[in-house]
Amino acid sequence: MNFASYVSGFIDGEGCFSVSFNFREKLKTKIEVRPSFAVGQNKRNLEILKEIQKFFNCGSLRFSLKDQCYKYEVRNIDDLRKKIIPHFEKFPLLTTKKRDFQIFSEICEKVAQMKHRNPDHLKEIIKMAFQMNVSGKRKYNQTKLLSVLDKMKI
Amino acid sequence: MNFASYVSGFIDGEGCFSVSFNFREKLKTKIEVRPSFAVGQNKRNLEILKEIQKFFNCGSLRFSLKDQCYKYEVRNIDDLRKKIIPHFEKFPLLTTKKRDFQIFSEICEKVAQMKHRNPDHLKEIIKMAFQMNVSGKRKYNQTKLLSVLDKMKI
Repeated sequence: MNFASYVSGFIDGEGCFSVSFNFREKLKTKIEVRPSFAVGQNKRNLEILKEIQKFFNCGSLRFSLKDQCYKYEVRNIDDLRKKIIPHFEKFPLLTTKKRDFQIFSEICEKVAQMKHRNPDHLKEIIKMAFQMNVSGKRKYNQTKLLSVLDKMKI
Repeated sequence: MNFASYVSGFIDGEGCFSVSFNFREKLKTKIEVRPSFAVGQNKRNLEILKEIQKFFNCGSLRFSLKDQCYKYEVRNIDDLRKKIIPHFEKFPLLTTKKRDFQIFSEICEKVAQMKHRNPDHLKEIIKMAFQMNVSGKRKYNQTKLLSVLDKMKI
């Protein structure tokens, strides 16, 4: 058994790479960018999430009372770039999630370079993020986010 | 990348080992036993199911219009015993699905030995099957199935 390959298979089914946005008045762009790598499981499968956390040596585990699920999540940009992304480059995803991962990886690179602090680059990041997980729910739609940045330039 | 380990990871998240029952008047026990190994994916991920089918070299792919999903399924008892079960013995599941797999494996062995044609052994199989996927939906409940066999002995 090659656990690294197992992890890629498991994440290809159950994992999620996402980039969400929140309004933060104190930020120059007013918009916070939050890349996240996460995988959830019913509480009876907490053990496998602990194994994955140990394997990646980063991230946190949280329990949601609402859906009785544990979620393993990595948000720290350094951990994402140095631990998570290199793993999935070496042990690639094989479903359409691979495309989400590629966009995710590019966005993390931009964030690490602080490009998200520039309104024009942030608009690009927003457009890229909205090409990911197209069936997922979002707090704010793309038009709303972009309009905030457009107004800023006036 | 070790595809065999990837497959175990993917199935640990997305796959299902199940044993269902149907009433069949022409059978001596009146009850048909159907072990099944299956994994479904949205149609955009048909490719990975084809890869898995090729890997196991058995089973079929079907499309469900209702949920726009493809399902890869193996029902043939020889394929289950000679191709599917040995894979998951060599590359084990790590979630609670491992327990379902173990019961599944024991039931397949009993079916291969034709034990399901004997009402007493079939009752045992039914009881074992109902310990699997406890959150899943079933067409007939355990009491109903067992009562058919109990009546038979009178």
